[in-house]
Amino acid sequence: MKDAGVDHVEAVFVGNMIATEATGQGHLGPLLAGELGCGPVECVSINAACASGAAAVRQAYLAVASGQYRTVLAVGLEKMTSLDRSSLTRLLATAADAELEVANSATFLALNALLMQRYMHEYHVNRTSFHPFVRVAHDNALRNPHARLQESVSLESYLQARMIADPIGLYDCCPTGDGAAAVVLGRDLPARGAVVITGSSSASDSLSLQERRNPLWLHAAEESCRSALSQANRCLGEIDLLEPHDAFTVMVALSLEACGFAERGRGTEFARDEGIGLRGRLPICTAGGLKARGHPVGATGVYQVIEAALQLRGEAGANQVPGAAVAMTQSFGGTAATVITHVLERC
Amino acid sequence: MKDAGVDHVEAVFVGNMIATEATGQGHLGPLLAGELGCGPVECVSINAACASGAAAVRQAYLAVASGQYRTVLAVGLEKMTSLDRSSLTRLLATAADAELEVANSATFLALNALLMQRYMHEYHVNRTSFHPFVRVAHDNALRNPHARLQESVSLESYLQARMIADPIGLYDCCPTGDGAAAVVLGRDLPARGAVVITGSSSASDSLSLQERRNPLWLHAAEESCRSALSQANRCLGEIDLLEPHDAFTVMVALSLEACGFAERGRGTEFARDEGIGLRGRLPICTAGGLKARGHPVGATGVYQVIEAALQLRGEAGANQVPGAAVAMTQSFGGTAATVITHVLERC
Repeated sequence: MKDAGVDHVEAVFVGNMIATEATGQGHLGPLLAGELGCGPVECVSINAACASGAAAVRQAYLAVASGQYRTVLAVGLEKMTSLDRSSLTRLLATAADAELEVANSATFLALNALLMQRYMHEYHVNRTSFHPFVRVAHDNALRNPHARLQESVSLESYLQARMIADPIGLYDCCPTGDGAAAVVLGRDLPARGAVVITGSSSASDSLSLQERRNPLWLHAAEESCRSALSQANRCLGEIDLLEPHDAFTVMVALSLEACGFAERGRGTEFARDEGIGLRGRLPICTAGGLKARGHPVGATGVYQVIEAALQLRGEAGANQVPGAAVAMTQSFGGTAATVITHVLERC
Repeated sequence: MKDAGVDHVEAVFVGNMIATEATGQGHLGPLLAGELGCGPVECVSINAACASGAAAVRQAYLAVASGQYRTVLAVGLEKMTSLDRSSLTRLLATAADAELEVANSATFLALNALLMQRYMHEYHVNRTSFHPFVRVAHDNALRNPHARLQESVSLESYLQARMIADPIGLYDCCPTGDGAAAVVLGRDLPARGAVVITGSSSASDSLSLQERRNPLWLHAAEESCRSALSQANRCLGEIDLLEPHDAFTVMVALSLEACGFAERGRGTEFARDEGIGLRGRLPICTAGGLKARGHPVGATGVYQVIEAALQLRGEAGANQVPGAAVAMTQSFGGTAATVITHVLERC
């Protein structure tokens, strides 16, 4: 709020996935509004699994667009470190289909492993092909003091790391953690470094992978990206940077393909040849991504929007993408059953 | 959707409180949209504790008001019967303050018992005074085949019923259960019996009772009611019926007072003298209320809106309020830490 130059907000939208179980606190809106001294404002929690933070930003966006509010706060938060590993695994799996997937012992990790296995089989790529996603995220994180993992990952380390769920190795997964983030959205905010959301779209796909015609095609990502670009009146070539939902490396490849940045089956090739580093054709994960900045679920979608805003304001420090004017963020809930895409632009 | 005359919706907003724990299914939006065959539409879950259903209606309202959508679906749902009693008590308590209330062993019931005790002490009323709220809700439920409890409750039965948490007796509490409800909101819906939301407002109060200057004054109910009436350009005297959040009898008295229907401390007197039955000055709980229709948490706020719509359409059957033209619904999350008020009118 200080950064935005406002001392009052008219509503608070909170993105969160598992606080009810993780902390015994399910009614987060009034708690936050009370602690922040916001007065008797509207406040509500939004749950879209791992896309909860982005969903809070989007509901805040709709609330401002509705004309009922001029200035609102979108908060993403998650507390995960108080849970033991099996509780956390169980709770993260509530993002998947309880009857078709979880009842058959599929964890969230297992579902992504199946996707990666299938990807490698269908498109004839090996694990080495996914290394650029890891390298770039970790390199960017090294220059971000807020990132959780501060280490570079060589191809050798990547390939030799412990296997978690074949073919997903340790470095194919993002770390969870505690985290929180907030953005102010509004009409006519004080001018300093304001950024405009020119596209906002949320789309869905069947909750379970098995109900999809082709599990390697993220229909919701395609639809949500297409709609957000159309609202913004932009084409893919105008996007200067992308914050993808890189919870697992295979998801970055699938996201690039569904959005149309890369051809089908060529997401890893795009990363290798076109460049996803800060000076590449499409810089991604400029703050370290879910992969190395970390993935406190409810906070993540808000982190993405903040990083995009910092880039557009030219305040991204050592990770600044030169001349960034148009940014895209894309957040996934479950195995992309919910996908929320935002296009942000410099004023 | 059939009733609304639409075969397609552009977004689905789901109100739910505890499905993640009660069913292991936390990602309800895509599940519902998929089962309903809605296509890749936006879908998101809203949690505002016991006001979750009303919050879903409100987010749907904001989404239509934003101009992004013409036709959306608001769904409220809860599955509670699969939980044992202690799990349910624990989960319902996540609507209260985990650190200030629940950590001190306050259940949700206990907090309401403290409020009722304080009410009786401050305002010099006895338990008998609360009987009209029970009598009216149960009488209306007797004429509603969808109501959960189908029995009339005499003053004698009310007073002699088992004490649950002094002074809350069995008939002061609403029953939980499984339930679901849905409404279609939109611009330019097919004309048949359409109803207009002329006021929609959500307000909050401190999460814990102990942080409130006067726990007997529901500040969020006052604020939310005032704002909804102002949007609708209506005064209290024009409200033909009210659906209050009668989870506990004391909450009806406090709601009537905070909204201004009754003077401070005179909610029970209002019920006795002015009439809250179908032909009284302010009919309430016309479908049986939370008290007797039942309170499947996430569904309740949507039930309220549906009952208001049926009344305005003249389709409320044996419980029809003659000439109903303006209705108000009010839904509470926690001990009215979240309050959502809607004003609905006949076209």
